Amino acid sequence: MSELFQQLQPYLDRAFALNAACTLFNWDQYNAPKDSIENTSKIIGILSGEQYRALINDEVKNLLPRLSTPEAQKELAFHEKAIIRLLNKQFRKLSLIPPEEYQAYSSLLVQAYPIWEAAKNNNDYASYAPVLEQIITYSKKFAGYAQKEGQTLYDAALDDYEEGFTTKILDDFFGRLSAALTPLVKKISQKQDLISTQCLHKFYPADTQEKFCHFLAEYIGFDYNRGLTSESEHPFTTQLHNHDVRFTNHYYENKLDSAIFSAIHEGGHGLYEQGIDDKITLTIVGSGTSMGMHESQSRFYENNIGRSREFWKPIYQKLVDMYPEQLSQVSLDEFYKAINASCPSLIRTEADELTYPFHIMIRYEIEKMIFDGQVTVDQLPALWNQKYEEYLGITPSNDTEGILQDMHWSGGSFGYFPSYAIGSAIAAQIYHHMETVMPIKDYLEQGNLAPIREYLKEHIHRFGCCKNTQEILMDMTGESFNPEYYIKYLTDKYSSLYEL
Amino acid sequence: MSELFQQLQPYLDRAFALNAACTLFNWDQYNAPKDSIENTSKIIGILSGEQYRALINDEVKNLLPRLSTPEAQKELAFHEKAIIRLLNKQFRKLSLIPPEEYQAYSSLLVQAYPIWEAAKNNNDYASYAPVLEQIITYSKKFAGYAQKEGQTLYDAALDDYEEGFTTKILDDFFGRLSAALTPLVKKISQKQDLISTQCLHKFYPADTQEKFCHFLAEYIGFDYNRGLTSESEHPFTTQLHNHDVRFTNHYYENKLDSAIFSAIHEGGHGLYEQGIDDKITLTIVGSGTSMGMHESQSRFYENNIGRSREFWKPIYQKLVDMYPEQLSQVSLDEFYKAINASCPSLIRTEADELTYPFHIMIRYEIEKMIFDGQVTVDQLPALWNQKYEEYLGITPSNDTEGILQDMHWSGGSFGYFPSYAIGSAIAAQIYHHMETVMPIKDYLEQGNLAPIREYLKEHIHRFGCCKNTQEILMDMTGESFNPEYYIKYLTDKYSSLYEL
Repeated sequence: MSELFQQLQPYLDRAFALNAACTLFNWDQYNAPKDSIENTSKIIGILSGEQYRALINDEVKNLLPRLSTPEAQKELAFHEKAIIRLLNKQFRKLSLIPPEEYQAYSSLLVQAYPIWEAAKNNNDYASYAPVLEQIITYSKKFAGYAQKEGQTLYDAALDDYEEGFTTKILDDFFGRLSAALTPLVKKISQKQDLISTQCLHKFYPADTQEKFCHFLAEYIGFDYNRGLTSESEHPFTTQLHNHDVRFTNHYYENKLDSAIFSAIHEGGHGLYEQGIDDKITLTIVGSGTSMGMHESQSRFYENNIGRSREFWKPIYQKLVDMYPEQLSQVSLDEFYKAINASCPSLIRTEADELTYPFHIMIRYEIEKMIFDGQVTVDQLPALWNQKYEEYLGITPSNDTEGILQDMHWSGGSFGYFPSYAIGSAIAAQIYHHMETVMPIKDYLEQGNLAPIREYLKEHIHRFGCCKNTQEILMDMTGESFNPEYYIKYLTDKYSSLYEL
Repeated sequence: MSELFQQLQPYLDRAFALNAACTLFNWDQYNAPKDSIENTSKIIGILSGEQYRALINDEVKNLLPRLSTPEAQKELAFHEKAIIRLLNKQFRKLSLIPPEEYQAYSSLLVQAYPIWEAAKNNNDYASYAPVLEQIITYSKKFAGYAQKEGQTLYDAALDDYEEGFTTKILDDFFGRLSAALTPLVKKISQKQDLISTQCLHKFYPADTQEKFCHFLAEYIGFDYNRGLTSESEHPFTTQLHNHDVRFTNHYYENKLDSAIFSAIHEGGHGLYEQGIDDKITLTIVGSGTSMGMHESQSRFYENNIGRSREFWKPIYQKLVDMYPEQLSQVSLDEFYKAINASCPSLIRTEADELTYPFHIMIRYEIEKMIFDGQVTVDQLPALWNQKYEEYLGITPSNDTEGILQDMHWSGGSFGYFPSYAIGSAIAAQIYHHMETVMPIKDYLEQGNLAPIREYLKEHIHRFGCCKNTQEILMDMTGESFNPEYYIKYLTDKYSSLYEL
């Protein structure tokens, strides 16, 4: 290690450890006592402030340019160069935010979560609107600090989640998606009686679901010696490092597919984090490279693999054995069709693969309008409902199943939603590529998922943030981001399913 | 707030938040994935180092004396003065230890725990002796740094856990205890057939125990909106602040009393922490004032109240209803006697109220000899066994049930054990005092525990570390520490139980 880098190391260690502490507090919040939030949010606020100061200080400011010269770079290992690159980016972004604003914002977010949660439970958007307004103000302010020449304000927000994906690229992406998929969705809405999902809506006791989901996560390769699972209202994945990866699930006793595909989805995120190289796991480049790439891994497992006939062939009988009364009369083919049925619906997280991107388009368009100042917080519920009618032909009957459904905005995550659609598109691109290098369907039919996981680890997971999304795609598939694979995948799959 | 104190505030906040983060990591360890320890311990190591540096630095070194002058003190609030007092003590103690020794010692302790654990499991004292020797060397060295004029080396160690309790006071305390209780223990050992504990050793399913323990904790006043409970091998209590207090329990299906009295004991610790004033909870004086005072609260609830006839009168039927098969033929009186049966035994944590202090006396005498250089590490097992024979008339058949039973020494906690006995004695003193100010037995019989809890909160809990043990006792009872109440309590209770 170069002497100069060694001088930087304590700052990196401190920032990493403080970030891990904040992560643990956030994880713990889901089980923490009801009345603990106020005090705990102060603690998290102080720790975030410390995390900020660990990187944004005069010593780092002095070291960074010296570590960025061509001579200094020559002495650095691959992952050290990546650390300097990321640190330069973070330093620029964070040093533009005054520390007291950053601290106040962190505290605000901790308080916002329960307010959003209560508002959602009580269908009471008005009680949430003031805090949402504050979060939006901060988010726009911070995006303004980061905004570069030629960027829109929303571009600056997008850059936090998916480097290089601008509104220009996304407008084109969503435009092509919409053009190709809208007619498909329309045709399928007229053939609804072709596939029944009734077999998924019998009574499925939660404890058995939990056991099957544990099996599924292990089946795709999630290592329970290096991770754990828990329950929360909305499934999510988080990690302290590559040996401590955690995800949650939620069990609905009348919706068998919900927890199953959450387990595979979050398990996919988990595999990414467990696959990070030991050398970088305790560093700032030791996690998935972007939201879109992360989402590509979860969706690759959930959809491209997890909703395929081949995936279920070796394991469907296990599910039937666990629920003989409910499933012994349901064939693998019926089950396959049921888990792939498409129908416009109101809740994003419950949407099928085909209508899902429309949920994202709606949020994308609304976020653009928020950042362009074209809509006020008070107008959001009506705008939301209008977009659902426009794109999916349905209107939420209340805000709980409308604008209050997602927690993202309460966490300040503006610019995050597009990553879901980007991830789906990348997943299709990767799947297409993998078909050219291995007999992926045969592996699935044999229940042999190791070669798939190993390939992803080798070409994506182990690098963490040492490569960005486009670099990974180029190195792996020889092609940059290309949404055509996604459009073709959905068109082929749903044309076949609905005999179009 | 004085301007000078305001300058200190960020350091205090940082130290508190980092300490809370370490607390949360330690709590989380009990559920963390098996293979996470190595990486996570690095994170905890970094956070502890930061915590040390948050207080031990040139700015604090400069501010502290300026905040300690009579003029500066005049401007401070009561709790701010307490913060300066405690910080002066901590600063003095920590700054006397050379950082490299502190670091080496911390690393040694991390290694020592698994060595002790393995030695205990394998009954192999020899494998533990070398590391114990090193820990003793460090402990004596550090006590030497802290030692003040006129203090023995062991006094300096005691001061870490119980300010103001010297060997002089403790020699007198244990001398009086031994003189009064030894004949009692002897007489009772000849009347063992008077009380049967058989009713506690039927099969008691763990899930029902858990429900009853939850009820018990709430019954004594533990607020589950501001706390939670979990499971671990050894029950313990910890807290992030007064709105987030957590304790664990362990359920043995053939020992009904174990979890029940752990719940009341840890619940007592929990009430102390939940009773801390909001004004100080996020500061370094925002937790119980000493180990002895903390232990007084847990033992007051567990023993003085929890093992009384009056306590069980309104709730015993509830326990019978939960275990009708096991308990419907067991009268309240039989149950009361069973939970108070006394019999010399080898394991401290399972000892009854009467023989318990002898376990502490033995450890106290051995620790004094260690610090006076009167015994070598090799001689400790034989000395241990000899003392058990001398005080309790029984000899461990191996070191696992002898000197290896406690983890304390492997963690460098020399001077800690006396706090357990001090706590029991304070509990008796407080109980005696409370009988003079309220109809405590009537309250218990009515199932009305609120006045008891409120009184303790008002006179003890809310102050945190703003008063020390002796100050609390003086202000509350008008008397300093007086072990006679404890001796009288045990003598009366056990004379009556065993018809002496």
